[in-house]
Amino acid sequence: MVYDTHNIFAKILRGEIPCKKVYEDNHVLAFHDIAPKAPVHILVLPKGPYKDMDDFTKRASAEEITALFRAFSQIACDHGLDQSGYRLISNCGINGGQEVPHLHLHLLGGTRLGRMVQAG
Amino acid sequence: MVYDTHNIFAKILRGEIPCKKVYEDNHVLAFHDIAPKAPVHILVLPKGPYKDMDDFTKRASAEEITALFRAFSQIACDHGLDQSGYRLISNCGINGGQEVPHLHLHLLGGTRLGRMVQAG
Repeated sequence: MVYDTHNIFAKILRGEIPCKKVYEDNHVLAFHDIAPKAPVHILVLPKGPYKDMDDFTKRASAEEITALFRAFSQIACDHGLDQSGYRLISNCGINGGQEVPHLHLHLLGGTRLGRMVQAG
Repeated sequence: MVYDTHNIFAKILRGEIPCKKVYEDNHVLAFHDIAPKAPVHILVLPKGPYKDMDDFTKRASAEEITALFRAFSQIACDHGLDQSGYRLISNCGINGGQEVPHLHLHLLGGTRLGRMVQAG
């Protein structure tokens, strides 16, 4: 399946839709989730056109991969989560519950998070 | 806080405790979780002594970071999850619910996973 250039995160990356930006560099954009599931819920995206983790790790450069995860941790620190802790989640495809077909890492924190997996 | 060399994953990496290994390369070891939360539940670890995602992204080389996430996706493919989908989770610190102080990525799949976050 090819990358869908009309997905909402592609539109945000092109500046066609606004976001509450918290971080940006050459390879990465991060912004607050519009429907937060925790006191801190930030989405961290590579700027390149990658559908999901599988697509990203196969096609992106080592520089892009390193930039994404270093930015992720930096954003956690910037929001005071490095001492209290946080959770990284990335949903891939149908079984993962991925909602937008552009790779995004969820950064969740600011409260004691529940179990990793639940039924249903 | 320094890395605790007596944690259970350090012992597995040194071969002092057995594991059901599914993948190994110079930088990465992966094995089945002993208490699986989904039909497929694999733990993917860097071999270096990193406590969590924060520690890893600050101290590990670009080669180690790239190797970890490329291996993660490769293992998902090897287990037939690239088409059906999967979830990546990494818990960091107290609020994340991290149980072992050696960075590990959870690879969860084989069923439709539930919501990302639940209370309690």
